[in-house]
Amino acid sequence: MALRQKQLLQHMWKQNWVARARNTTSRIMRPDDANIVGNVHGGTILKMIEEAGCIIGTRHCNTQNGDRCVAALARVERTDFLHPVFIGEVAHVSAEITYTSKHSVEVQVNVLSENIVTGAKKLTNKATLWYVPLSLQNVAKIIEVPLIEYSSPEQEEAGKKRYEAQKLERIETKVRNGEIIMSVSLPEPYTVAFSQSSLIHLIGPSDCTLHGFVHGGVTMKLMDEVAGIVAARHCKTNIVTASVDAINFHRKIKKGCVITVSGRMTFTSNKSIEIEVFVDADPLVEAEKGKYRAVTAFFTCISLDKENKPLLVPPLKLEGEEEQKQFEEGKARYLQKKAKRLADKECQQ
Amino acid sequence: MALRQKQLLQHMWKQNWVARARNTTSRIMRPDDANIVGNVHGGTILKMIEEAGCIIGTRHCNTQNGDRCVAALARVERTDFLHPVFIGEVAHVSAEITYTSKHSVEVQVNVLSENIVTGAKKLTNKATLWYVPLSLQNVAKIIEVPLIEYSSPEQEEAGKKRYEAQKLERIETKVRNGEIIMSVSLPEPYTVAFSQSSLIHLIGPSDCTLHGFVHGGVTMKLMDEVAGIVAARHCKTNIVTASVDAINFHRKIKKGCVITVSGRMTFTSNKSIEIEVFVDADPLVEAEKGKYRAVTAFFTCISLDKENKPLLVPPLKLEGEEEQKQFEEGKARYLQKKAKRLADKECQQ
Amino acid sequence: MALRQKQLLQHMWKQNWVARARNTTSRIMRPDDANIVGNVHGGTILKMIEEAGCIIGTRHCNTQNGDRCVAALARVERTDFLHPVFIGEVAHVSAEITYTSKHSVEVQVNVLSENIVTGAKKLTNKATLWYVPLSLQNVAKIIEVPLIEYSSPEQEEAGKKRYEAQKLERIETKVRNGEIIMSVSLPEPYTVAFSQSSLIHLIGPSDCTLHGFVHGGVTMKLMDEVAGIVAARHCKTNIVTASVDAINFHRKIKKGCVITVSGRMTFTSNKSIEIEVFVDADPLVEAEKGKYRAVTAFFTCISLDKENKPLLVPPLKLEGEEEQKQFEEGKARYLQKKAKRLADKECQQ
Repeated sequence: MALRQKQLLQHMWKQNWVARARNTTSRIMRPDDANIVGNVHGGTILKMIEEAGCIIGTRHCNTQNGDRCVAALARVERTDFLHPVFIGEVAHVSAEITYTSKHSVEVQVNVLSENIVTGAKKLTNKATLWYVPLSLQNVAKIIEVPLIEYSSPEQEEAGKKRYEAQKLERIETKVRNGEIIMSVSLPEPYTVAFSQSSLIHLIGPSDCTLHGFVHGGVTMKLMDEVAGIVAARHCKTNIVTASVDAINFHRKIKKGCVITVSGRMTFTSNKSIEIEVFVDADPLVEAEKGKYRAVTAFFTCISLDKENKPLLVPPLKLEGEEEQKQFEEGKARYLQKKAKRLADKECQQ
Repeated sequence: MALRQKQLLQHMWKQNWVARARNTTSRIMRPDDANIVGNVHGGTILKMIEEAGCIIGTRHCNTQNGDRCVAALARVERTDFLHPVFIGEVAHVSAEITYTSKHSVEVQVNVLSENIVTGAKKLTNKATLWYVPLSLQNVAKIIEVPLIEYSSPEQEEAGKKRYEAQKLERIETKVRNGEIIMSVSLPEPYTVAFSQSSLIHLIGPSDCTLHGFVHGGVTMKLMDEVAGIVAARHCKTNIVTASVDAINFHRKIKKGCVITVSGRMTFTSNKSIEIEVFVDADPLVEAEKGKYRAVTAFFTCISLDKENKPLLVPPLKLEGEEEQKQFEEGKARYLQKKAKRLADKECQQ
Repeated sequence: MALRQKQLLQHMWKQNWVARARNTTSRIMRPDDANIVGNVHGGTILKMIEEAGCIIGTRHCNTQNGDRCVAALARVERTDFLHPVFIGEVAHVSAEITYTSKHSVEVQVNVLSENIVTGAKKLTNKATLWYVPLSLQNVAKIIEVPLIEYSSPEQEEAGKKRYEAQKLERIETKVRNGEIIMSVSLPEPYTVAFSQSSLIHLIGPSDCTLHGFVHGGVTMKLMDEVAGIVAARHCKTNIVTASVDAINFHRKIKKGCVITVSGRMTFTSNKSIEIEVFVDADPLVEAEKGKYRAVTAFFTCISLDKENKPLLVPPLKLEGEEEQKQFEEGKARYLQKKAKRLADKECQQ
């Protein structure tokens, strides 16, 4: 690199990132960051806050010799959303290290929203995050944190108090969380109940056509995701989709709906798993319309070893008549497809 | 691969990008399109197939005067995944209109995977999709489809047969689907059970740090999403996040885990809703490790009218002692925060 | 808002965004931003550059009374990628307004990559973008740009020269673009036809500005993706973008359009590949408007071995006069750039 470029680099560095201990990120809020009336999701802001904290924390903990490390989030203090942020506004997220203990870093993050068209600016969030540096060589090892300098002993003292307070709270919740026994009654392995899974998804602008109705492909992708998770829970292996039976899209799903995609195993052969997947749509705001079943389909998955060869599938344990009946129907579909495959092969020869 | 398939493959390859009734998409498969061992999700392929179908269907149905329209997916015929696709390969999706009825369009889609480094190409999918053109002025109106020309009367005849067969099947499933009564027992409105929701998410590479552990921000974004859906189900209005109580991240979550994010209402004041959100991690493949609770937090949401002003919240209907106890605890947190807010205000004056 | 908060806000604003005419964005590079060996796509960087430019341009053009507006990308000057960026590094993008004419704004953008683990920092890009402010009330109307102050008359004079030069070039390419006809035919290895590629993309809401027109950065990212595929097909190796020639954005592309991005090789030197990339827009629904060519540009890529060192490029096999002519033109561009690089080096010594 020529001398001139080096100087430019140093100059830029000084100008933009004045102190090492500060970091700023800006991003335009897009339709996918917001709900249908244009309010940016709190979750989008939280994610930006944490990215800013992770950058500054990781940078700081690597300013010394020894193991390279990554700052892992340990705690976020109570966070208020002071003002809503809207699509088209720019969120400016600035992070600063405000305290360091031997093994943790406190980062203060502020979020300003700027309407670049009107010029209006608002402070929308102030968050405090605690990070712990984990070694890249050995993730179980916590690195020592280089200490920061404080502008006054009072500042350091206040930081220490915040540190002690959060430490106490962390220990308390750890104990409390241990108490909360998972209320979900755990079903027996290899049963239908054990592997059944569902996800909810809020239909956002990018999921939709010009009409404001969800693209069929978006629905199918989520259905495949659920089928894959159901099969992986049953087999505990690498799962791939082998086929999808005909799918009919009877009813349209509108932007702003919440869809619930649920899957449950119906049949296992030696080397394949059949999963029935349901899509139920809930038009939240237009509650009078009620929930409705929008799509159903059967997915067939196979379980692969490390060389991508099919593995034997643990047989499904059936409970009750309904499951027995569905298994029989699944078997009939399986045999029919097998027969068709053989017939097709003969045709080709 | 049989000789016949090779020929078909070469034929398709040559024919690609020829006539206007053909359309081809190519895209490199990225880490987020695949599972942890590098197999591209079937859902990614299905989504690309449908996008190609929607484009060619919409383009075709707008080649005439009259209402502008969008092609809406009505049915996908049974689809087989012939070969796995891997990260770094290019998927070529080509779509062709093969039949038109008065109100529907049949699109045939083929997917080739190409390893651009070795040059290897494979036919991985053949799918048949049916679209119906809906007017952009009035989505309830189905437009007439411009007819295509066939290379022979036999070809048209075969298309007509496929059309009749799928029509019959669609009617059949419509009837059958009507029968399937939703097995979920619907809880009473305004109870905790009515609005409680959960989603599952497979931790992909882009969710993770260099260590292969999930970014705290990704987890928080999903928690906020669930809290928002729970509150919207209760209020049926526009919901924004007002605050998040302190969150502790006790246990790390690794790439390839499935996380279940669940939310349930714990407390309502006049104008706010408290939702407790849980994150449970399930390391699927390393089953011996078992499921564990990774994070919990309380989110406070408010319900807004069209002018972004807070609305009254319908009170929560409590069922049983446990819910009563949690409501009281939520009330205590609410009053404590309110007192703190007032104290802070006085300090500032 | 309490007085104390106002003061804090003003203080933060001054500290972080010293001059109005500067803006900085930082983001961690994720697996999806990179190819399979971990090199961040040039397209990801181009997209961040354009977002930074759009923010500062829009902010500046709204610092006056009158119509509110959005800055639309009109042209990007030739851009070099000085160093590869890797997954896990932080890209810092800083933008500054360097010249204003009556109807356009010149923005200078610098990109630094920072390895937050080792602390290494590199200047990876310097780009110059031209924006035109379009009224939000009437997108056909171009707003007058508020003038900036220059630190010296020489600085203003130099800006004016750059403005005149780019204006001339924009007019020239507009003429040339009309001529080019795409000739699609296929395969022998190392020919132009063998590696030529195209992708289609449906413009969704999150690709667009408040106007409903696609962000220039989205288009550039897709162009880079196609250039990378073309080069990888030819070389069968790890490809990175080395530079992009000036790009002119002649015609706007609207939400709901399908764009076809096509690339073909035009020239190979010993260690570089030149690819011409075309963007054609098809407003599907408004079929009467017809397809039109929206953007074209030349990308230069290099082929790297496992140690990230440049490899020899297999020479391009030319077929026909047209390809011969384009190769000669590519060679002229290559020699001109080489001469300029040498001249620049001498200047710096």
